[in-house]
Amino acid sequence: MHVTSEQRLDDGVLERAFTLGEIPGILWTPEAASLSAPVPLILLGHPPLGLRKMYARLAARARQSAAEGFAAATIELPGSGDRPGWPALDQARADLRRTMQAGEPVSDGIVDALVLPLVDKAVPEWQAALDAFLSLPEIGGPVGYSGGVISLGIRLAVVEPRIVAAGLFAGSLVPRVMFEEARQVTIPLHVLLQWDDEGNDRQAALDLFDAFGSQEKSLQANMGGHTGVPQFAGDAAIQFFARHLTSGRAVRSAGQGS
Amino acid sequence: MHVTSEQRLDDGVLERAFTLGEIPGILWTPEAASLSAPVPLILLGHPPLGLRKMYARLAARARQSAAEGFAAATIELPGSGDRPGWPALDQARADLRRTMQAGEPVSDGIVDALVLPLVDKAVPEWQAALDAFLSLPEIGGPVGYSGGVISLGIRLAVVEPRIVAAGLFAGSLVPRVMFEEARQVTIPLHVLLQWDDEGNDRQAALDLFDAFGSQEKSLQANMGGHTGVPQFAGDAAIQFFARHLTSGRAVRSAGQGS
Repeated sequence: MHVTSEQRLDDGVLERAFTLGEIPGILWTPEAASLSAPVPLILLGHPPLGLRKMYARLAARARQSAAEGFAAATIELPGSGDRPGWPALDQARADLRRTMQAGEPVSDGIVDALVLPLVDKAVPEWQAALDAFLSLPEIGGPVGYSGGVISLGIRLAVVEPRIVAAGLFAGSLVPRVMFEEARQVTIPLHVLLQWDDEGNDRQAALDLFDAFGSQEKSLQANMGGHTGVPQFAGDAAIQFFARHLTSGRAVRSAGQGS
Repeated sequence: MHVTSEQRLDDGVLERAFTLGEIPGILWTPEAASLSAPVPLILLGHPPLGLRKMYARLAARARQSAAEGFAAATIELPGSGDRPGWPALDQARADLRRTMQAGEPVSDGIVDALVLPLVDKAVPEWQAALDAFLSLPEIGGPVGYSGGVISLGIRLAVVEPRIVAAGLFAGSLVPRVMFEEARQVTIPLHVLLQWDDEGNDRQAALDLFDAFGSQEKSLQANMGGHTGVPQFAGDAAIQFFARHLTSGRAVRSAGQGS
């Protein structure tokens, strides 16, 4: 992990831009992180629009996390932002755009082509990034995953045991095979659904929520479109992480001792 | 309002049992209520099982409300508890029990007979009780309604302008006509749904949520059966009221001044 720039934000949060191999990313740590015990971490998911474009929203979420005493971090998705172009992904995006503009139903083939290669490629990258974050003395876990491409969150929740809780955003196209993976998820989940999300099939989102195997899963549905998540819903998501990443710390160390 | 007994609970909450005409009820006020400005009020709804049977759960909700600085109050439903029997209601209950034990679908007729007369009779009683509560110097509003028979909450939200926010529990049989009334509800709503509620039709609950006319409405669905509402969901409901009954005070007084 090579830090390329760092700045202290006005609330004391330390923001570090870095590269991990060729992958750019950003890490935010609360002011107190260097002074006290290692802090939990929230991985910030985001749509594949490039970190530069998503920066303002990511930084706001990171600062909210830092206010709860958590570090937050994210990396660029394959084919997005400053990373090398990915012609197959661009093709899938163009197919989706064309289909939606024509008012036609989005086929399973388009959704699969758009999401599955992205998840396959991104998951090991996020796991490698997690290795790097957890090797820093100021970050100790446990780790949560929050938002972004929901299929990435599902896959990570299944394959990455260091992630103990996930806040997912039911706002993107979900390949059918991910419903099967959803049944294998057992960590606590907090799922946000925008009831009038223009880019999302509400019934599919409810079916996906139903499919999750987790014993503790909570669906919070609010009015409004894709980007209209109300402030109080963001607060509730942070409280979810506060509940699981704080009490989880004790549970984890108890487990590690046995 | 005739106070029949009063006691100070260990957290300082003053609990007063009263009768209002022939209707028994309970009022809880936070310790600070007599010392500072008049406090907001939450009307505690409950299923028609009698206040005595529901006391422990009601008192717990009241104490949680008091911890946020709110008074809480409830009255006995018609035909329940110590109130005179209501043969038609008993008949409707017996019909429902028989139908469910036989594993037959519950007809609209049974639901209507069970709920509509109860709502028709209870609503003016709750409004009269509200008059009495708000005439006390320590209670100033605004007023929220919470839980219990959801159709009572819907009707009150439509007809009673002093109720500015409602936390509803999607856990009871809802007559079809109430879906029409739901469209007329415009106050902020926080709707709890137990995903695996054995006595509740999940799809009907989602349809009802969709029908509400409120611009701010939030559905919180959690795992578990009818009585398995997790602690954090109760906390979230209290936060909903804190948001609306506290900021609402300023909004209301601004409105009253114009």
